Amino acid sequence: MNSDPTASQAQAAERLQQLQTQYQEILTQGLSLDLTRGKPSTAQLDLSDALDGILQGDFRAADGTDCRNYGGGLGLPEARKLAANYLECKPEQTLVGGNSSLQLMYQCVLYNHLFGDQEGAAWSREAGGGKVKFLCPSPGYDRHFSVCEALGIEMIPVALNAEGPDMDQVEKLVQADPLIKGIWCVPKYSNPSGIVYSEATVQRLARLGSLAGANFRIIWDNAYAVHHLVENPPELANLLSLSEQVGTLDNVYAIGSTSKITFAGAGIAFLASSETNIRNLARHLSYVTIGPDKVNQLRHVRFLQDNATIAAHMEKQREILKPKFDLVLQHLDLAFTGKCVGGDPIGTWTRPAGGYFILFDTQPGLAREVVRLTGAAGVKLTPAGATWPYGEDPQDTNIRLAPSFPQLEEIAAAMKIFTLCVELATLKRSLEKS
Amino acid sequence: MNSDPTASQAQAAERLQQLQTQYQEILTQGLSLDLTRGKPSTAQLDLSDALDGILQGDFRAADGTDCRNYGGGLGLPEARKLAANYLECKPEQTLVGGNSSLQLMYQCVLYNHLFGDQEGAAWSREAGGGKVKFLCPSPGYDRHFSVCEALGIEMIPVALNAEGPDMDQVEKLVQADPLIKGIWCVPKYSNPSGIVYSEATVQRLARLGSLAGANFRIIWDNAYAVHHLVENPPELANLLSLSEQVGTLDNVYAIGSTSKITFAGAGIAFLASSETNIRNLARHLSYVTIGPDKVNQLRHVRFLQDNATIAAHMEKQREILKPKFDLVLQHLDLAFTGKCVGGDPIGTWTRPAGGYFILFDTQPGLAREVVRLTGAAGVKLTPAGATWPYGEDPQDTNIRLAPSFPQLEEIAAAMKIFTLCVELATLKRSLEKS
Repeated sequence: MNSDPTASQAQAAERLQQLQTQYQEILTQGLSLDLTRGKPSTAQLDLSDALDGILQGDFRAADGTDCRNYGGGLGLPEARKLAANYLECKPEQTLVGGNSSLQLMYQCVLYNHLFGDQEGAAWSREAGGGKVKFLCPSPGYDRHFSVCEALGIEMIPVALNAEGPDMDQVEKLVQADPLIKGIWCVPKYSNPSGIVYSEATVQRLARLGSLAGANFRIIWDNAYAVHHLVENPPELANLLSLSEQVGTLDNVYAIGSTSKITFAGAGIAFLASSETNIRNLARHLSYVTIGPDKVNQLRHVRFLQDNATIAAHMEKQREILKPKFDLVLQHLDLAFTGKCVGGDPIGTWTRPAGGYFILFDTQPGLAREVVRLTGAAGVKLTPAGATWPYGEDPQDTNIRLAPSFPQLEEIAAAMKIFTLCVELATLKRSLEKS
Repeated sequence: MNSDPTASQAQAAERLQQLQTQYQEILTQGLSLDLTRGKPSTAQLDLSDALDGILQGDFRAADGTDCRNYGGGLGLPEARKLAANYLECKPEQTLVGGNSSLQLMYQCVLYNHLFGDQEGAAWSREAGGGKVKFLCPSPGYDRHFSVCEALGIEMIPVALNAEGPDMDQVEKLVQADPLIKGIWCVPKYSNPSGIVYSEATVQRLARLGSLAGANFRIIWDNAYAVHHLVENPPELANLLSLSEQVGTLDNVYAIGSTSKITFAGAGIAFLASSETNIRNLARHLSYVTIGPDKVNQLRHVRFLQDNATIAAHMEKQREILKPKFDLVLQHLDLAFTGKCVGGDPIGTWTRPAGGYFILFDTQPGLAREVVRLTGAAGVKLTPAGATWPYGEDPQDTNIRLAPSFPQLEEIAAAMKIFTLCVELATLKRSLEKS
C-alpha cells in the first residue's frame, strides 16, 4: 500500500509501471467522455417539458398585460413575486430578465463601471487613470471572472474557506484600496467548492458596504439556492434582509435564475437589490433592450407557481443528481481514501450538500498534468486553473468535477480513468523527485 | 374654404371659434386614446399563438442539439438558415439572438465603441479625448438615437429624402471627419417616414466603407423587410451582397427580427455581417450572456419555416393592418386635401407601402403644439421631436402616427381629434401672426 511511507521505491516503480500499461491500453480505446460543465442532463430537462404549451392560448398576466406584446422592462408582476419569494425579498426589490443571469450580472457591472447613478459615480471615472478592482473568492466561477476580464477590471483572488471568503482579508483589502469596487460571491454550494457561507460571514458581508463605500457592490450569485443533494440542507443567511437592516442594501445585487430548475438555456433570470438600484438598472436596460421575454416569464410562473412547487420539483432533480455525485465519491473513496504518496494524501475532495460540482485537489503542482493526462485518454475535464482569476491556480491543485450531464456508466468510465491519471501523475512525480 | 387665399380674416376667425368650441366639448369627454407606438394589435398577435406548444415535446434541433440546454452562442443552425433567407445572405454570415434586435444593435455599438477587434481599434480609443459621432438620417427611430445617447456618441442629423439619406451629405461628412463611425439606417418602410432606400442609395452605401474607413459601421436595421401594406411591394437592394462585391462587408451589420411577425416581445432577433465580424461579436457576446434562448428559436423555425411561409403569414398581418392605415389616410384626405392656411397646405403626409407609421408634417413650428393639444384632449401621440436626435426636430413639423395597435373605432375617434387640433393650431397661429 502506498499509504505506508516506508513502501519501497521498487514497489512504487512497479505500481507506476502497472498504471502506465493500463493508461496505454485506455489510449487505444478512443474514448470520448466529458465531465467539464455544470449542465443538467436530459432526464433533468425532461422534468420541465410541460413549459412549452403550458399557456394554452392564455397569454394574459394577472394585471391584464398581453405578454406577447412589447413593454414591461422590470418583468411581469407575478414573475417579480416569484423572484421575490425565491430570493427572499419584496417584489419591488426585484427585476426579472431574460434567459441569462450572466447577462444581468454583466449589465450590473457594466452599468456601475461605465455609467453610474450620477455624474462622476461610475467606477471607471472615479478611478481616473487607475484600475478598478474586484475581489474574487477563489476557486470560483470562470464566467464571473471573464466579465471582469472583458471590462478591464483587475481581479484580486481572496481565499475561500469552509465558511466563505476570508473576511479578515476582504475587510482589510477594501479599507486599504478604494478602487476595489466589488466582490463575486456564490454563497450557497459555491461553484466549485460546494461550501455554504456561514451566518457570521453573511453578517460581515452585510456590513461590508459601510467599510467599502457607497459604490461598492456585492454580486451575490445565488445560483444554487434550492439545488440540494441532501435531505436536510444547510441554511443560508439572508444577505438582502441583513443589508436592509444595516442600511447597505444599495451595495448588494442578489441574482438567481431557473437555469438549473427548468431549462438551462431557456429559463428566466432575476435580480434583487434596493428599489433605487432596481430603478437605475431598469433605466440602463431600457437603452439595451426592448424588454425581457414576458411570454417565457408567464410560462415559468404557471409552471413553478411558488416556493413549495419549486421545492417539490427540485426533489425530482435531486433524485436524478444524487446517484451521480455518489458514484463520483465512491470512486474517489475507493481509489484514494487513506492513500499517500511521499507522505501526503494523493488527493482531497469535497462532499457537497448541493450544487453541481465536486472539487478535487491534487498534490501541489499536479492539476494541469492530471487534466492533460485524462484529456489525452478521452476524458474532458474543466481546464486546470479555470476556476481562478486569469486561469492561475497558484498551487495548481484544483480540479472541478461536474457529474450532472453524463449517464452513470459514463461517469464510472470517466472516474476510473481520472483516478488512474491522478495516481499515475502523483507517483511519477514522486519517483522523479526521489 | 380656407383653400382660398383671399378668404377673409373674419371667416378664418369664425372657423377658429367653431373649432375651439368643438375642442372644449372634447375636453369634457375624458377620452383616452393612443397612437404612440408601433405595437402589433391583439388580432395580429393571435396569428402566432400556435408558437406556444408547437414543439410537442421535441426539443431537438436538426443536428441533435438539445435546445433546452446551454450552448450555441451563434444560434441554432436552422435558425441561422431562416435568418439568412430573411436577410438574403449565407447562414455563416448570421448570428441569431434573443427576443430583442435592439439588444443586438446595442451590443454591436458597445463592442465597437469600447472593445474593438484589436488593441487600439475601439472607437473610443481612436477618438482619444475627442467625440465619436454617428450619422442619424432624420426623422428616424428614437431607440437608435438613445443607444448613442447612452454611450456618449454624438449624433449628427442628416436629411432623409424619398430615396434614403442624402448621400452627398453623408459622403462629405464621413470624409471630413474620421471620428464619424457609423450611420443608423431603416432602409425599408423607414420609421417613421415609410420611404424605401433606392438602389442608387444602397449602392452608394455599399461603397461608403471605402470612404469612411475600416472601423465605420452601417447599422442596417431592416425591421420591416416583409411588412408590406400594398400588393406589389417595392424592392430593396441587397446591401449585404453589394458590400460583399466591393469588399466592404465588414462595414455592415444588417439586423432583422420577428418582433412584428410573431410576438413583439417574445420573438427572435438576428444579425448578418462578414464572418469575421460575426466571430468577433460572438466572442464579445460570450462574456455578456450564456447564450440565446434556443427553445424559442426552434419554436420560430417550426412556425415560420421559410420565406414563403413568412410571406403568407405577413399577408394575414396586412389584412389586419391595411384598413387601419386606410382609415388614417381617409381622415387626413378628408380634412386637409387642398386646404391651405396662410397660403400653405395645412399639412402633408406619407402614404407608406409598408411598415408601421404614417408621418404627418404640420406647418413649421406647430408639431409640439398639436401634440400638446391632442394630448390634453385624451389622444396620446409620440412626443414631437422624438424622431430626431436629442428630441430636436429643427422645423418642429414631424408627427408620427402609429395606427397598428388601436381598434378602427378608436382610430376614427383619435383622428377626428387629431385633424381638429391640427387645423385649430394652424389657424390660431395664422391669425395671431396677421
